[in-house]
Amino acid sequence: MRAAFYEGPGNIRLREIHPTPPQQGEAQLRVAYAGLCGTDRHIFHGKMDWRVKRPQVIGHELSGTIVDLGPGVQGWDVGQRVTVMPLDWCGQCPACRAGHTHICHRLKFLGIDTPGAFQELWNVPVRTLIPLPDGLPLRLGSLIEPVAVACHDVRLANVQAGERVVVIGGGPVGALIAWVARTAGADVTIAEIQPGRLRLLRQWGFQVVDPMATDLMAHIEAESGGAGADVVFEVSAQPAGIETALKLPRTRGRVVIVGIFSEPPRVDLFRCFWRELHLIGARVYEREDFETAIQWADAHRDALEDLVSAVYPLDRVGEAFHHLEQGAEIMKVLLDCGASRHEE
Amino acid sequence: MRAAFYEGPGNIRLREIHPTPPQQGEAQLRVAYAGLCGTDRHIFHGKMDWRVKRPQVIGHELSGTIVDLGPGVQGWDVGQRVTVMPLDWCGQCPACRAGHTHICHRLKFLGIDTPGAFQELWNVPVRTLIPLPDGLPLRLGSLIEPVAVACHDVRLANVQAGERVVVIGGGPVGALIAWVARTAGADVTIAEIQPGRLRLLRQWGFQVVDPMATDLMAHIEAESGGAGADVVFEVSAQPAGIETALKLPRTRGRVVIVGIFSEPPRVDLFRCFWRELHLIGARVYEREDFETAIQWADAHRDALEDLVSAVYPLDRVGEAFHHLEQGAEIMKVLLDCGASRHEE
Repeated sequence: MRAAFYEGPGNIRLREIHPTPPQQGEAQLRVAYAGLCGTDRHIFHGKMDWRVKRPQVIGHELSGTIVDLGPGVQGWDVGQRVTVMPLDWCGQCPACRAGHTHICHRLKFLGIDTPGAFQELWNVPVRTLIPLPDGLPLRLGSLIEPVAVACHDVRLANVQAGERVVVIGGGPVGALIAWVARTAGADVTIAEIQPGRLRLLRQWGFQVVDPMATDLMAHIEAESGGAGADVVFEVSAQPAGIETALKLPRTRGRVVIVGIFSEPPRVDLFRCFWRELHLIGARVYEREDFETAIQWADAHRDALEDLVSAVYPLDRVGEAFHHLEQGAEIMKVLLDCGASRHEE
Repeated sequence: MRAAFYEGPGNIRLREIHPTPPQQGEAQLRVAYAGLCGTDRHIFHGKMDWRVKRPQVIGHELSGTIVDLGPGVQGWDVGQRVTVMPLDWCGQCPACRAGHTHICHRLKFLGIDTPGAFQELWNVPVRTLIPLPDGLPLRLGSLIEPVAVACHDVRLANVQAGERVVVIGGGPVGALIAWVARTAGADVTIAEIQPGRLRLLRQWGFQVVDPMATDLMAHIEAESGGAGADVVFEVSAQPAGIETALKLPRTRGRVVIVGIFSEPPRVDLFRCFWRELHLIGARVYEREDFETAIQWADAHRDALEDLVSAVYPLDRVGEAFHHLEQGAEIMKVLLDCGASRHEE
């Protein structure tokens, strides 16, 4: 079978390998579609070489069908259509013992710390499997994982109907947070600078602001009668993004830290103190977020379809990564890992 | 009567002035004791000249006795012993309308934005008055305001019995947070570098760590079986303090921003994301915090007495400020604004 190996910065290569049968506690999936995540892009750029082995198959957003089960596996059937919550936790550390297995101190992230989904057949622990609903196309099933990120972020922010929400950064995750918050009844504004993304976000009916052209703080102040936003999601991971994020909330408003800041930015803790703000870190997802994500996805297929900028066959994985580089106007790029050669 | 006026950086001077009678809605207090706050020190250093008029009577931590009431004031009696919640809010802004009058968008802080307590007679709105319990010495009554700060911080952090709490900075506010958290049943460690403060904190039975001599993160990890602290109070307002504060909490632990950062420090938002931390800004207090503070103070008179490093008569206010400068080993310096000339 074919598998795409990350071999070093800028170098991802297809190889022919022998599949290994699923072990105890594992299912073997025939991968249908797999999405390229921002993290995959970081890996491709060599920025996670401290963590990722070379060569290694990467990828962790996918849909697929169970084609084999390891010895003794019960409760799953060959032919079931699934996605994967790509987390493997220890169950022993203080975080796991406190019930926060998704941010286990020794968490292994499938496709980063272990082999991933950019291959035709992928063996995963059955406890990571999430069934897909009948009728949800596998193409869209590969987008459940980023939807689950958005569901987690919106849940931790405790977004309520009628609340004013600002999302800073309108890429795939920011757009999905905006969608999920709107579905929860929030009034959502998205700050984004890329014209292509602004067009799509506007087409979806969101209020959008280009913060290079408009004073976002003045805009939100005016919209809210001087109060400020209830919740701000910082998704850009840019110093200017977190600077803006602290200016927007109302008294006791919330700022959710979604973007991954590789360097500690300057944060206006005086503002945090002055308005008694809450800053909330939100990482990955829990099983309930996948369940919410699947319900949301099933009810919003058109929006998910809009999010797909391009689909490449697995053997053109290098081109897929280069497509992602072409500009921030791209939303999601998917790999077809075999779906087109099988029934959906 | 005598009043101490801030006249410019490093310059505070006693003047003889005519008292004005209390207006409608006001009470006139004969000030007994008044504490020097870190904010008063900032004012004395000229760091708040953008906000404080010159000349102006400053001071906002006090005890006193009602000696006169403005026309039509009901519900208060001459002779009542009181302290003051030194906040004056507009009642109209979005924060007030949301019930957060203590952080009103147009908040006036008595003794900063309006004349203060470093004088023999002080007129204040009666809605700011807080009755002192019988038998609580007026000397200790002047410390209720900083205790209320601590009660607010501990309340917003939602500290629970049995939780592991770290306080970064063992000055007066840090020490009081530690006390109030311990009274709530928490297991408290204080990080402080001044030997004199360390001695007092140790004498009170707190676990203390000098972070210059001991690796605080390793210490808390070891104490908590690798989990981390439940709550960290950042009271130092130092870049090193907030850097440490983000390293200590457990998964989903809380960091309370108490220190006033005049410049935005670098904050490890990756850690905030990684452990799903909550950062909580906490400013001043609400009436219920004064009520808790009075109960706490009445039950912990010895600790409050220990906090008093020195008492100066009002006419030696300049010396009192210079005493405060002598070193960070000082806890609270009080002014005797007339108590010694009247019955307590």
